[in-house]
Amino acid sequence: MALIVKKFGGSSVRDVERIYNVARIITESYREGNDVVVVLSAQGDTTDELIEKALEVNPNPSRREMDMLLSTGEQISIALCAMAIEKLGFPVISLTGWQVNLRTDSNYGNARIKKLEGDRIRAELHKRNIVIVAGFQGINKYGDITTLGRGGSDTTAVALAAELGADLCQIYTDVDGVYTADPRIVPNAIKLDEITFDEMLELASLGAQVLQNRSVELAKRFGVHLEVLSSLESKPGTIVKEVTTRMEKTLISGVAKDDNVASVSLIGLQDVPGVAYKIFSVLAKNRVNVDIILQSIGRENTKDITFTVAKENLDLVTKILKDNQGVLAFKDMTTNDKLSKVSIVGAGMINNPGIAAQMFEALYSVGVNIQMISTSEIKVSVLIDKSESDIALKAVHDKFFATRSDH
Amino acid sequence: MALIVKKFGGSSVRDVERIYNVARIITESYREGNDVVVVLSAQGDTTDELIEKALEVNPNPSRREMDMLLSTGEQISIALCAMAIEKLGFPVISLTGWQVNLRTDSNYGNARIKKLEGDRIRAELHKRNIVIVAGFQGINKYGDITTLGRGGSDTTAVALAAELGADLCQIYTDVDGVYTADPRIVPNAIKLDEITFDEMLELASLGAQVLQNRSVELAKRFGVHLEVLSSLESKPGTIVKEVTTRMEKTLISGVAKDDNVASVSLIGLQDVPGVAYKIFSVLAKNRVNVDIILQSIGRENTKDITFTVAKENLDLVTKILKDNQGVLAFKDMTTNDKLSKVSIVGAGMINNPGIAAQMFEALYSVGVNIQMISTSEIKVSVLIDKSESDIALKAVHDKFFATRSDH
Repeated sequence: MALIVKKFGGSSVRDVERIYNVARIITESYREGNDVVVVLSAQGDTTDELIEKALEVNPNPSRREMDMLLSTGEQISIALCAMAIEKLGFPVISLTGWQVNLRTDSNYGNARIKKLEGDRIRAELHKRNIVIVAGFQGINKYGDITTLGRGGSDTTAVALAAELGADLCQIYTDVDGVYTADPRIVPNAIKLDEITFDEMLELASLGAQVLQNRSVELAKRFGVHLEVLSSLESKPGTIVKEVTTRMEKTLISGVAKDDNVASVSLIGLQDVPGVAYKIFSVLAKNRVNVDIILQSIGRENTKDITFTVAKENLDLVTKILKDNQGVLAFKDMTTNDKLSKVSIVGAGMINNPGIAAQMFEALYSVGVNIQMISTSEIKVSVLIDKSESDIALKAVHDKFFATRSDH
Repeated sequence: MALIVKKFGGSSVRDVERIYNVARIITESYREGNDVVVVLSAQGDTTDELIEKALEVNPNPSRREMDMLLSTGEQISIALCAMAIEKLGFPVISLTGWQVNLRTDSNYGNARIKKLEGDRIRAELHKRNIVIVAGFQGINKYGDITTLGRGGSDTTAVALAAELGADLCQIYTDVDGVYTADPRIVPNAIKLDEITFDEMLELASLGAQVLQNRSVELAKRFGVHLEVLSSLESKPGTIVKEVTTRMEKTLISGVAKDDNVASVSLIGLQDVPGVAYKIFSVLAKNRVNVDIILQSIGRENTKDITFTVAKENLDLVTKILKDNQGVLAFKDMTTNDKLSKVSIVGAGMINNPGIAAQMFEALYSVGVNIQMISTSEIKVSVLIDKSESDIALKAVHDKFFATRSDH
């Protein structure tokens, strides 16, 4: 007997058949004697359809009214799922974000959770009810509905698991776990039984988006045990936790690539203190996220700075920089939007300094040229030409996981 | 400057064009300096579509989960309408039933309003916001969503008008007011400028369903001035209030018919006290509404009782009576489901005893046979053969309103 939080995404409840699939997973766990709390997203394309409806009325609606509108999507899901569970003969109750008193700040459309009171849920569990909670939504201090932004339902599930002291928080998806690389590109990628929070955070930010970073961060902070697993196949997924028990030899948990990368180089900057500060504060003011930063010595007592941004921000960034060329005092600017970032992630590399070299060797062996390098304690990233990204990913994956492909 | 509550039904907000029509009516009133509170129903067929979705999942869902589901319909309406008003450049905020703390009992699907706190609305009006409230929904003492049943949005509007002390509660519909008869049957029917609450109540229960009885009762109890008017034409509608200022000669406010009538006759009942009590208490226990009751003397020291019910209840009623034939001790039962009820309503008839006779004369003049008669202080109803109901309606209407058709 355990307390389990289960989260299902929109595609898992997109039609009647899928709703019953989810209802059966839930009731099976309940029948085994567990207390079961479920978090649901809106069905299939409901959110997109509601957005479309809104934009037909007003191309620029207030975010408050948008949240009022969008939160209906999850409310429909939870009611329908509860009805399916009733049909299967189990006691169940659905609850909205405001009914579980999920308190957020007032940043409509992308609100952060401030507080969550589990009293109502605990009372319902005490009555032996299965509890179905609407993901993605909360209320602010004015009593107005807010939504949590991308991956909001994952965050709701983890927050509930933390508040209720759940034994496990299961995130059901279309894939059956976290892999050492994207199986669509690297066919011999291996499913991991376990991964650490930090590794998961690095992988998520690298484009292997199984879980949203916010939910992983929250799980790490409150020590919530996460499991990523499939809603369509009944088999164990990948456990995400603080420390894994993987064998020593598997230093790397995964290899990922991100094709959504552009680089900007500012040439001929003055070699005086404060130059980098000025550049990146003007970008931060415009809410541009900068990823890798590389500073190098230029000619004639100047320096060059190269950094990467998401490709969709490239036009904005070049405009901002040009507008500020006088203040920033750079001579020239070049950009490149045909880049990919390939990364290896693994908590084991902290004590194994040879890991990065092995990665570079793998890239060299297939003739891939490295344009930039960035390292953190548990990650090594390289920027390469986008046309070579698939071959690079495979080569790096094989370097670290080839010996396990007989698994 | 006044405080006005405006209610719009589902067809008034069924698409973007209609939403803007409503938004313009609202903002025009606001621009004139009024405080404006708006109550909306779900768009067009949304409620029916949600019910259909639910029944696909579970043909017999709990009423609590059904209310959780259905209440999203109004929430979508209010958000979209608020967005339209934003687009027109006016300050606006939408609020759900729980946000205005509309408290109801726990009779899911057909809940009664217990309390309504206008604090949030008053605060928003004070900020000069137009306030858009979701009709049809509230919360019970457990903090669960309830819906108010048929005509629930009208009831919400009247309850808000009462709580806020509104100067006027305008119910916008597809018709432009209350008529002396159904204009589809009686082409020379006349729109009334005013009608009393009691007359409106009798007319609503007679099938001329412009307003739901619950909302009229509530308006009468709290002295709310109602106006029934068209959302598509900009002209005055019909005012519903306690006492009207109609001229003496217009004794009758309207003529209505109801084709949804069936009669049941119990023949050969014992002529002892308590017989009627037994019959109608067993029907009341089964929640059957009985309309007209007629008792007559039968043969050989027995009596006969005939009463009418809504046609859809006829099978249920005959089953109940047969099941209880031993206790009720009637000899025979006959039924008739080919009846219509034609009624005249008017507060003026209290002091004018000749009114009923004028009605009977009109029916006689077109050869319509009267099967049953029932009278109240402001109403006379007759039961006639259904095939003659249209001709009867016209004849009765012409009798009382022909002199006004030059209006």
